[in-house]
Amino acid sequence: MLDLHEIELYTDIMGLHGLFEPDKLHKNYELIDERNQIRSKIIPSLEEAVRLSGLKDGMTISFHHHFRNGDYIVNLVLDTLARMGFKDLVVAASSLTDCHAPMIEHIQSGVVRRIETSGLRGKLAQAISNGVMNAPVVFRSHGGRAYAIETDELQIDVAFLGAPSSDAVGNANGYSRENNDKGIMCGAMGYAKCDATYANKTIILTDHIVPYPNAPFGIPESDVDFVVQVDAIGNAEGIMSGATRFTNNPKELLIAQLAADVIEMSGRFENGYSFQMGSGGASLAVAQFLREKMLRNNIKASFALGGITGRVVDLHEEGLVHKLLDVQSFDLIASQSLKNNRYHQQISASYYASPANSGTAVNQLDFTVLSALEVDCDFNVNVLTGSDGVIRGAIGGHPDTACGAAVSIVVVPLTRGRIPCVVQRVNTIVTPGKTVDVVVTEYGVGVNPQRKQLRENLAKAGIPLLTIEQLQQKAESLVGKPEPIRYLDKVVGIVAYRDNTIIDLIHQVQ
Amino acid sequence: MLDLHEIELYTDIMGLHGLFEPDKLHKNYELIDERNQIRSKIIPSLEEAVRLSGLKDGMTISFHHHFRNGDYIVNLVLDTLARMGFKDLVVAASSLTDCHAPMIEHIQSGVVRRIETSGLRGKLAQAISNGVMNAPVVFRSHGGRAYAIETDELQIDVAFLGAPSSDAVGNANGYSRENNDKGIMCGAMGYAKCDATYANKTIILTDHIVPYPNAPFGIPESDVDFVVQVDAIGNAEGIMSGATRFTNNPKELLIAQLAADVIEMSGRFENGYSFQMGSGGASLAVAQFLREKMLRNNIKASFALGGITGRVVDLHEEGLVHKLLDVQSFDLIASQSLKNNRYHQQISASYYASPANSGTAVNQLDFTVLSALEVDCDFNVNVLTGSDGVIRGAIGGHPDTACGAAVSIVVVPLTRGRIPCVVQRVNTIVTPGKTVDVVVTEYGVGVNPQRKQLRENLAKAGIPLLTIEQLQQKAESLVGKPEPIRYLDKVVGIVAYRDNTIIDLIHQVQ
Repeated sequence: MLDLHEIELYTDIMGLHGLFEPDKLHKNYELIDERNQIRSKIIPSLEEAVRLSGLKDGMTISFHHHFRNGDYIVNLVLDTLARMGFKDLVVAASSLTDCHAPMIEHIQSGVVRRIETSGLRGKLAQAISNGVMNAPVVFRSHGGRAYAIETDELQIDVAFLGAPSSDAVGNANGYSRENNDKGIMCGAMGYAKCDATYANKTIILTDHIVPYPNAPFGIPESDVDFVVQVDAIGNAEGIMSGATRFTNNPKELLIAQLAADVIEMSGRFENGYSFQMGSGGASLAVAQFLREKMLRNNIKASFALGGITGRVVDLHEEGLVHKLLDVQSFDLIASQSLKNNRYHQQISASYYASPANSGTAVNQLDFTVLSALEVDCDFNVNVLTGSDGVIRGAIGGHPDTACGAAVSIVVVPLTRGRIPCVVQRVNTIVTPGKTVDVVVTEYGVGVNPQRKQLRENLAKAGIPLLTIEQLQQKAESLVGKPEPIRYLDKVVGIVAYRDNTIIDLIHQVQ
Repeated sequence: MLDLHEIELYTDIMGLHGLFEPDKLHKNYELIDERNQIRSKIIPSLEEAVRLSGLKDGMTISFHHHFRNGDYIVNLVLDTLARMGFKDLVVAASSLTDCHAPMIEHIQSGVVRRIETSGLRGKLAQAISNGVMNAPVVFRSHGGRAYAIETDELQIDVAFLGAPSSDAVGNANGYSRENNDKGIMCGAMGYAKCDATYANKTIILTDHIVPYPNAPFGIPESDVDFVVQVDAIGNAEGIMSGATRFTNNPKELLIAQLAADVIEMSGRFENGYSFQMGSGGASLAVAQFLREKMLRNNIKASFALGGITGRVVDLHEEGLVHKLLDVQSFDLIASQSLKNNRYHQQISASYYASPANSGTAVNQLDFTVLSALEVDCDFNVNVLTGSDGVIRGAIGGHPDTACGAAVSIVVVPLTRGRIPCVVQRVNTIVTPGKTVDVVVTEYGVGVNPQRKQLRENLAKAGIPLLTIEQLQQKAESLVGKPEPIRYLDKVVGIVAYRDNTIIDLIHQVQ
C-alpha cells in the first residue's frame, strides 16, 4: 500500500491547505436577496467603510487629484476621520490645491501629521510655507510617486478614491454612461489606478452607482474593497472646463510659435514622432502651431501623451495623431474621447512615468513641452515655489517627461510682471538641468550646451539662439535682480527626485 | 543653525536614498540610434532572453493556453531550454493539450520535473496516466490557478507568453491591427495577463512587432521584461475555428432545449440576468434557445461571461446582451469583436474567477451551463478522467462558475456509447456536488435536493424531473454498471480545489 506521505508534493500541499471541506462552501440557495447582498461591496456609510478598512492612527491614506480644484473627497474624508477621532495620519495625495485649505485645521488639531503630494496651492500652501506643520511635506513627481508606491517606500494603508461612476463591486470610471454625461466627469483616472493596485484597502466614493459590469473600467473591481455612495464627489466647474483655453496673449503666442519651430527644426520631427504638451495656454498654442507644420510636411504623430486636452483630441480625430495615452484628462472633450474612443487609452501613473520601468511612456517621447515658474543658468527648473519663496505649484510629470523625452522644451516668459523667470539660481530645484534641453522665451531660445547636435540644427534653421546667461542677463536688465528670499531654518518641504533621492529642500519663509 | 539630522523624515530618506546625484542621470543626447535601442526590449534570440531572465534549474516557468491545439510556444520553449541544458523545471501552464505530446521526451530526460495545469489530453495525458512522471501533476481550475499565483502558492519565475502582436516595449495583444487580420488571432489573453502581472520575469514571444503604442493592450508593457520575435507562434487552424460549431445532434439539441427551459423557469430569468455558456456544441445550442426565450419575454442580459463565442457576440450585437466579459475568446468572431468593440471587455483570470476576490466575475453570474464527462449521485462532476481512468480533459473554470453562479447547470447525455455518464460515484471529483444545482440529460432533469425552491419552480413549470438516483439507474439499465477501473498505487495527479485544498487524487492506470 502506498503511503501518501511519501509523496513530497502531496505532503506539502496537505501541510499548507489540507483536504477540501465541502462544509466550508457557502453557496446561497434560496434567498435571492441575500445573494444580491453578497454580490455588493456597497457599505452604508463612509464611517462604516473606514471601520471595516482597519484604519488606525498614524496610518497612511491616499487620494487622487483627478477632480482638481473641484474636489470634495479630501475634505469630506478628513472631516469624517477627524470626527471619528483619528490622529497622526499621513496624507499621501497625488496632488493638493486651493480647495484643500480646510486641511489646515486638521493639521493644527493633529489629525494630519504628514503630507506627501505633487504640489500645494492657495491657503494650505501658504500655511505650510509659514511653518504650520512639524514634519516637512514630501514633494514627488507623478513618476516618482508611482515608484515610491511600487517599491514600498510609500505604503498606502487606505486609498479613498472618488469616482464619477462605480458598480456595486467597485468597477470604477471617470465618467458615466448611464446619466447622459450630466454628472461629474474627470476622464482618465491614472493616479487612482496606481493607488488602487497597491493600497492595502481601497474605498471607492461615488455619487453614481451603475449596473454591473461598469466596463470598460478604469479601476477594476479586483482592486477595490468597499464602495460608498456619497451625495457629491466634486464640483464640475472646478474639475474641468469644457475645453482648455487657447491663449490670446501675444507673448505666449510668440513663445509657442518659437517652441513649435524648435520642434520642427530639432532633427526629430518626422513621421511617427511623439509628444506631450502641458496644459497651460502656451502649450496648447504649441499644439496648434505644430498642427500647421504637420500638415505642411505631411507628418503624423504616432502618439500623444498626457495630460490630454481637447486640442490634442482634435489632432487625433483629424488623423494627425494615431493614438492617445492618457493618465489625466484635462477637459470635457478629452473625457468624452476617453469614454468613446478605444484608441484613447487610459494608463496608470506607473505605466506613464515610473523610473523603474524601462518601457515607461515618458521614455518613448520625442518631445515634451513644459512650463516653469523659473529656470536658471544650469537649466534647472522650479515649478514649486514662487519669487517670495512660498509654495505655489505642483511638480506633476515635469521631471519625468524632461528625463524621458528625447528633446525637453521649457517654455517660459523672460519675466512675469516684475519677476525674472530666467535667473542665476532657482529658489527650488525640481527638474535638474541635465534633463532640460531647450528653454524658449519671447526673447530667444537657449539650448543646453550638452546638446551640441541639437544646437547646430537649430542654428542652421535660423532659430534665434542665445546663451542661457544672455537670457538671464536680459531678464535682469528688464526687472533687476530678484530680492533674496528670507528664509527661516525650519524645513517645510523635501523635494524628492523621481528615484526617491533628495534634490532640494524648502524652508519656511519669514 | 538647524541640524538637518534633527528632522526625522529627512534622516530617514537620506539614510535610504541619499541626495540626488546628477551624474547618475543618463539622458541620451546625440545618438538617436542609441536612444531607439534604449527604447526597445527586443532581444535577438530566445536563448539570450532566457539568459537575461536569470532562469535556473528547478525554477518555475509558465505558459498560457490561448493558442489551444495550435500552440507552438510550449514546445519551442522547452526544446530551447532542453538544448541549453536546463533540468528539473516546473512547468505551470494554464492548460496543456494534444499538441504538447513532445513534452514526454522532456519529462523522460529530466528537463521537466513537475507540471501544473488545468488539463491534459492526448499522448501526454496518457503517458502521465501511465506513470511517466515521478511527481504528481497538480490540476487547478482557472480561478484556483489565479488564486495560487496571487497567494504565492505558485511562484512563477519566468513566464513565456506568446502574443499575436507586440510593440518593442511589450504592449501585447491577442490580435493585430497592422496586418489586416491575416496573422494568428486568439482574442482575449486573460490567463496570460495574470502570469504577466505576477511572474518574476515575463518574456513575450511574437511573430509580429508593431509600432508603439500597441494600445489598447491586453498585456501592458509595464508587466513585460523582454520581447522575442519568433517565426511562428502557432497554427491558426489549431487555435480556433471561424465560428464555433452549432450542434445538429438530436440528443444534444434535446438536452440544450431542456437546459434553456430550466433557465427560463428557474425563477431567476429576468431582465438584467447574466450567464456563462461553455464552448461545447450543446452549450451553444442553449444560447440559441435562450435567445428565443429572451425575445419572447422581452428580456435582456446584463452581461455574458466566458469563454466567449461568436454566438454570444451575435446576441450582444443584436442588443440582447449588454456587455461581454472575456477571459478567453473561442473563435474568430469573438476575437474580432474583442478587437473592435469596447463593450467586449478583456479580463484577467483573477478578475474572472479568483476565490480571493468577493466581487469576482463568476460570483455575479445568474446561470452557468457546464459540460461533464460524468456526474454522480452526490452531484459531483468529473471533467478530467475518462471511463478508463486516463486523464483526458481540463478543469477550466468549471468549479469556479459552479460555485459562483446562482444556478449551475450541468448538461450531460445519460450515456456516451457504452459509457454511463450518470454514475454512483465519479472516478475523479473536480467540481463538488454542493455547488452543482441541476443536471440536465436527455431523459430528464435532476435537481440537487438542497435547492428546494428551485425544484419547486421547475416542477410547477412542468420540467421533467427525476431524482439523480433515477437518472443513474436509467443509465445503468441502458449500458450496465461501469467496469471498476484498475489503478496502481502511484499518484499521478493531485486535483486541487479553488482554495488550494486537495479534493481528489488521480492514480496511475494499470
